Amino acid sequence: MESTAQPRRRPTIRDVAAAAGVSRGTVSRVINGGHWVSPEALAAVEEAIRTTGYSTNQHARSLVTGRSNSVAFLLTEPQHLLFEDPTYSILLRGAAQALASRGMPLLLMVAGTADERKQVLGYVGAGHVDGVLLISSHAGDPVLGALVKQQIPTISCGTPLGFESEIGYVAADDRGGGARMTRHLLDSGRTRVATITGPMDTPGGRQRLEGYRTELGDRFDAQLVAHGDYTRAGGAAAMRELLERRPDLDAVFVASDLMAAGAMQVLREQGRTVPDDVAVGGFDDSGLAATLDPALTTMHQPLERIAHEMVRLLLEVVEGSDPAAITLQTPLVVRASA
Amino acid sequence: MESTAQPRRRPTIRDVAAAAGVSRGTVSRVINGGHWVSPEALAAVEEAIRTTGYSTNQHARSLVTGRSNSVAFLLTEPQHLLFEDPTYSILLRGAAQALASRGMPLLLMVAGTADERKQVLGYVGAGHVDGVLLISSHAGDPVLGALVKQQIPTISCGTPLGFESEIGYVAADDRGGGARMTRHLLDSGRTRVATITGPMDTPGGRQRLEGYRTELGDRFDAQLVAHGDYTRAGGAAAMRELLERRPDLDAVFVASDLMAAGAMQVLREQGRTVPDDVAVGGFDDSGLAATLDPALTTMHQPLERIAHEMVRLLLEVVEGSDPAAITLQTPLVVRASA
Repeated sequence: MESTAQPRRRPTIRDVAAAAGVSRGTVSRVINGGHWVSPEALAAVEEAIRTTGYSTNQHARSLVTGRSNSVAFLLTEPQHLLFEDPTYSILLRGAAQALASRGMPLLLMVAGTADERKQVLGYVGAGHVDGVLLISSHAGDPVLGALVKQQIPTISCGTPLGFESEIGYVAADDRGGGARMTRHLLDSGRTRVATITGPMDTPGGRQRLEGYRTELGDRFDAQLVAHGDYTRAGGAAAMRELLERRPDLDAVFVASDLMAAGAMQVLREQGRTVPDDVAVGGFDDSGLAATLDPALTTMHQPLERIAHEMVRLLLEVVEGSDPAAITLQTPLVVRASA
Repeated sequence: MESTAQPRRRPTIRDVAAAAGVSRGTVSRVINGGHWVSPEALAAVEEAIRTTGYSTNQHARSLVTGRSNSVAFLLTEPQHLLFEDPTYSILLRGAAQALASRGMPLLLMVAGTADERKQVLGYVGAGHVDGVLLISSHAGDPVLGALVKQQIPTISCGTPLGFESEIGYVAADDRGGGARMTRHLLDSGRTRVATITGPMDTPGGRQRLEGYRTELGDRFDAQLVAHGDYTRAGGAAAMRELLERRPDLDAVFVASDLMAAGAMQVLREQGRTVPDDVAVGGFDDSGLAATLDPALTTMHQPLERIAHEMVRLLLEVVEGSDPAAITLQTPLVVRASA
């Protein structure tokens, strides 16, 4: 590695001011149109911009238009879930495609910890993105409140609990999907249908459970409900809990395919055959379901379409439109597990 | 979803100017320190900033310091490889941790297509990030040349072929690692050791092959070399090609664990036992190797440390230091496959 003559640092307005022998304010005025600048200062600054290689477009353009021509794909989950659950990679690909067709880059940001939330909000609040595609919003998540308060154009993936009338969203029909899967399990003759929910502060966690509960009506039994966290390990732990509490269960609706993978492993370890002893239904159909053994019966989320609609709505909000909400149907996909 | 009274759009300098009844230039001058502005205009602009809710810090701060306090993790590969190869998620996590400890957010950007490259370079060139962690650089990649030309502080993961003396990098010892694995296969008594390389325009592709070739010396046989693309499918295709060309091969050094997974599947399909019939050695040790059956013998890349060193070097360059290059050792991890 050779030493290089010039530092790699990009020239700043400070460098231009020093080279021109004027104040930074004068440089700013030149960049912003040259008003209130003497002809001598103007010439000196223009010469200094040339010699330092300063790009006048760097910030000046966004200072005038207030636009960065980019949006953030903001995941408010621990980073590992991005790689563990294929749902996120499909959403990311769909959003990147929709943005690319409009000539805009996508920035992925992760805000899974309090520190990360603060850093992300600082970056977004400084105007480096025009808006936010908010993935996996938790009720009471300070990110959601901060985005609303700062009036950052935002579209949520799933209902933004507590802010339904303030920011737009694109959601699968979580309630209807939960009810549909529960009915499918009942229709196959099962009588003790358990459920493993998502986190109860997420729309998918709450609404898929509501659908299950509504469908069961009088037959609802709180002992057959266990809570998971959308991870494979969480699905496994919830399945163990259910089997201990109600060893007679004969079906389980699991609120995500990744949790269902963990639940099926526990059933296998405990000598229960799927679907003969226990029928298993999932939710997502994001690629994993078809690879499980037996292949998982699940509710199909139109993830690519969700991503495309989110981008469309977000860019409308950036342009000044009122936010809109879109709910998309989730068809039942019957495979071998139920 | 209720309609809301105010559009979500964030107020811009244009809105402030309209509310104050002054030009945008006047607003800019107020934001940049208030020079050359009459007391009446100053009062009007300050009032308009309050009523519109415009945040004066949005761009003004970065206009003065030339800093956004963020860096991009730029992957110049198709997006799916990010999710297919665990190497990238470990690098991403390491970089995010190193940046978080300095209070900086990480932005992931993907430039796998010509359109994406253009969009990413536009965003980076506009000053929205202070520097770039360049992941998986291909020789002749226009992104690399454009970053150098625009003097964007950049640190490459792996040798930046063609720009070794212009930008800094952190690399595993690819040449030494390739030689070490080849020696391990020879030491176990194998005599027809093949290799599946990475792309020949990447440092890992070239230098791991160089290590293999150097170690074999006079025994090198071009018929035993096939090229892959770092994907599982590419590893499988290269293995089929090798078996067809040289069915007598008794070992193969594969330049990434993901490609080795594809190669092992082909060996199994063709009735070859690993390691008895064919010994297989990989490169990466990023989590996948230990889960393969049989568990893969491989070269361990210290990915977390690579990510931390990249962040450290990049922030030094942002501060004006000359770029540095770091090469880290890759220990041999012996498991069952060789």
